Amino acid sequence: MPFVITLLSDFGTRDAFAGVMKGVILGIAPEARLVDLTHEIPAQDVTAGALVLRAAAGFFPAAAIHLAVVDPGVGTARCPLLVVTERGLLVGPDNGLLHPAAAVLGVREIRVLDQPKYFRHPVSQTFHGRDVFAPVAAHLAAGVPPQALGSPVSAMTELPLAAPSREGDELRGEVIYVDRFGNLVTNISAADVASFPAQGLSVSVAGVANVPVVSNYAAVPNGAALAILGSWGLLEIAVREGSATRRLGAQRGTRVDVKIRAVVTRA
Amino acid sequence: MPFVITLLSDFGTRDAFAGVMKGVILGIAPEARLVDLTHEIPAQDVTAGALVLRAAAGFFPAAAIHLAVVDPGVGTARCPLLVVTERGLLVGPDNGLLHPAAAVLGVREIRVLDQPKYFRHPVSQTFHGRDVFAPVAAHLAAGVPPQALGSPVSAMTELPLAAPSREGDELRGEVIYVDRFGNLVTNISAADVASFPAQGLSVSVAGVANVPVVSNYAAVPNGAALAILGSWGLLEIAVREGSATRRLGAQRGTRVDVKIRAVVTRA
Amino acid sequence: MPFVITLLSDFGTRDAFAGVMKGVILGIAPEARLVDLTHEIPAQDVTAGALVLRAAAGFFPAAAIHLAVVDPGVGTARCPLLVVTERGLLVGPDNGLLHPAAAVLGVREIRVLDQPKYFRHPVSQTFHGRDVFAPVAAHLAAGVPPQALGSPVSAMTELPLAAPSREGDELRGEVIYVDRFGNLVTNISAADVASFPAQGLSVSVAGVANVPVVSNYAAVPNGAALAILGSWGLLEIAVREGSATRRLGAQRGTRVDVKIRAVVTRA
Repeated sequence: MPFVITLLSDFGTRDAFAGVMKGVILGIAPEARLVDLTHEIPAQDVTAGALVLRAAAGFFPAAAIHLAVVDPGVGTARCPLLVVTERGLLVGPDNGLLHPAAAVLGVREIRVLDQPKYFRHPVSQTFHGRDVFAPVAAHLAAGVPPQALGSPVSAMTELPLAAPSREGDELRGEVIYVDRFGNLVTNISAADVASFPAQGLSVSVAGVANVPVVSNYAAVPNGAALAILGSWGLLEIAVREGSATRRLGAQRGTRVDVKIRAVVTRA
Repeated sequence: MPFVITLLSDFGTRDAFAGVMKGVILGIAPEARLVDLTHEIPAQDVTAGALVLRAAAGFFPAAAIHLAVVDPGVGTARCPLLVVTERGLLVGPDNGLLHPAAAVLGVREIRVLDQPKYFRHPVSQTFHGRDVFAPVAAHLAAGVPPQALGSPVSAMTELPLAAPSREGDELRGEVIYVDRFGNLVTNISAADVASFPAQGLSVSVAGVANVPVVSNYAAVPNGAALAILGSWGLLEIAVREGSATRRLGAQRGTRVDVKIRAVVTRA
Repeated sequence: MPFVITLLSDFGTRDAFAGVMKGVILGIAPEARLVDLTHEIPAQDVTAGALVLRAAAGFFPAAAIHLAVVDPGVGTARCPLLVVTERGLLVGPDNGLLHPAAAVLGVREIRVLDQPKYFRHPVSQTFHGRDVFAPVAAHLAAGVPPQALGSPVSAMTELPLAAPSREGDELRGEVIYVDRFGNLVTNISAADVASFPAQGLSVSVAGVANVPVVSNYAAVPNGAALAILGSWGLLEIAVREGSATRRLGAQRGTRVDVKIRAVVTRA
């Protein structure tokens, strides 16, 4: 069965950077199955790339190779990495991009890509996606074993991700991602919420809104805000048939608190 | 020969929702051929999704599986559907999204997806594309027959689409879609136009513009408006090397009338 | 091994034009591997399409078929072309779109697509991507030889691309493309720059900025402008972790001069 290679980057889709990586891959591994996760990570936003990769990688077959390139340090000393996990391989720069996904998938070993014979030459200063990461992912798909591609190292760069904190009967978190619908994805997980009663919870956003925690969008009228455990397994704030980021003026970093609802609403 | 699965949604391409669906599909049907129709349907715009699906599905091989998810009612009682047609299978929510394509492809049978063993579990409240529709499309591609996936029903939700009306020597229609070039796609078909003389037709937009019906863009100067039978088989209003929606201030719902041309133009 | 067909167009990704082309291709060549270069070429911008195609095509396997459609003259007398090169086949309109890529790949023969039996019928006036170019690319992938698809011609339409000029110790070029990061790609090649000393070069943009030529982004502080030989093999002006087009107010056509640096900077 051909290997799946997923691609995630901040290259956008209008300049053919992603297409060029695919050309390089298909020259090395003609049978590889290529799947775009996204190329629309905001330019050089390693955190957004890391969160999207973490949210997506686990849904692919365990033999998948995940090629991720959000690489503001390209051309500097930051290392190129291969991470072997319990459920897939990760290839990309060692700048925190791979760490959240690796943690979720279960790290087996981390290798620095130090075997130039598996690179494309000459290696440019500006496009390691094409010259380092794509060739390595392709060689993996073509059967080269991880140990041939790099030397083991003991650690990788971690991404400083805010964790929610408990204060009395309140859980303090924040928005970590805003999706295309304007939904506010928080750092509050299903497990965090499970420590509260199942009913009567509300969420405040930036200290002011009073948003009910519900189990489906239809629990509130059109245009109303709601909090729900979303598809990432994290609490999200949404506006039914609308945009929470616009309505609530919230963005990445906005504080989100979960508490026993003070005011009973109609929801 | 591997099955083709097309994907259409309003998920956008920056959050990996589409990528996640592909991961789920490849886990079930590793050989499936995946083709994006588009993920840029405006958020929750069932009508736009239905029209694009109708415009595209017929160009695929008759064995194709068309997975479409524009699903503002996700998590509510709206049914998940499988429609077997003369020229392909349609999978998606029963909210009108599938109906125009089904009508064009020729409905054989309609089934409600009521066999949870073919879903991904736990089924989320917010992402049936991942948990219901993608797994079902994948099982179809992997050889599960339609009758195993759901119970037959007699009808599906239709989309209320405006039809053009004839009034004397005038045909009254409207803009139903604005494409990426700013072309105004109307609900007036080639057959409707065929009831008029082949020459000397003009079109008014919002009652004012006087646009000649021509057979190619070059029939008018750069920057001029024209009406033409477009690639959807419908009358479109365009501006040569420009945008009709901007120039004419027209959008979805804007009235478009076809009539014998009153004023002879240079075209 | 299945043939790779790349697709480049100005169709965007929200209307399914690209998806329809893929449906047509898969109906003729079910095993073809489809890779999007981009569909986000600005509408009817033949020059941008030609430059992106030139930048990307060489990275694909030599048997690849490159289908490119930026076609403001669709429906007029402009010819549909097939160009056989040393490293791949090019299919698209004869309006200059294919010429820069053909020149780089090495032209073997040029053929006018004059065999309607390989088209999709009826051939529309507005969408030769679907009715002419996609079917021809698919037939090539399915094994039809170039000579069956069209008659040889001696020349193709060239694209008027500005070339840099040398004036004393100064090289005068211009911005030919602005990429998604806001980097300014110039028409000044690595070979042009090689005629200068390796150290102490600077670049002026629109006659004013004084930008050092460096070998990696990290040579300047965050937010500073730099010039670098980019992944296209051309001199690019960038702003480290920023946008050069916004910072320098430059766009396609803006003059860029390379000279021995007059003022020593900290870089």
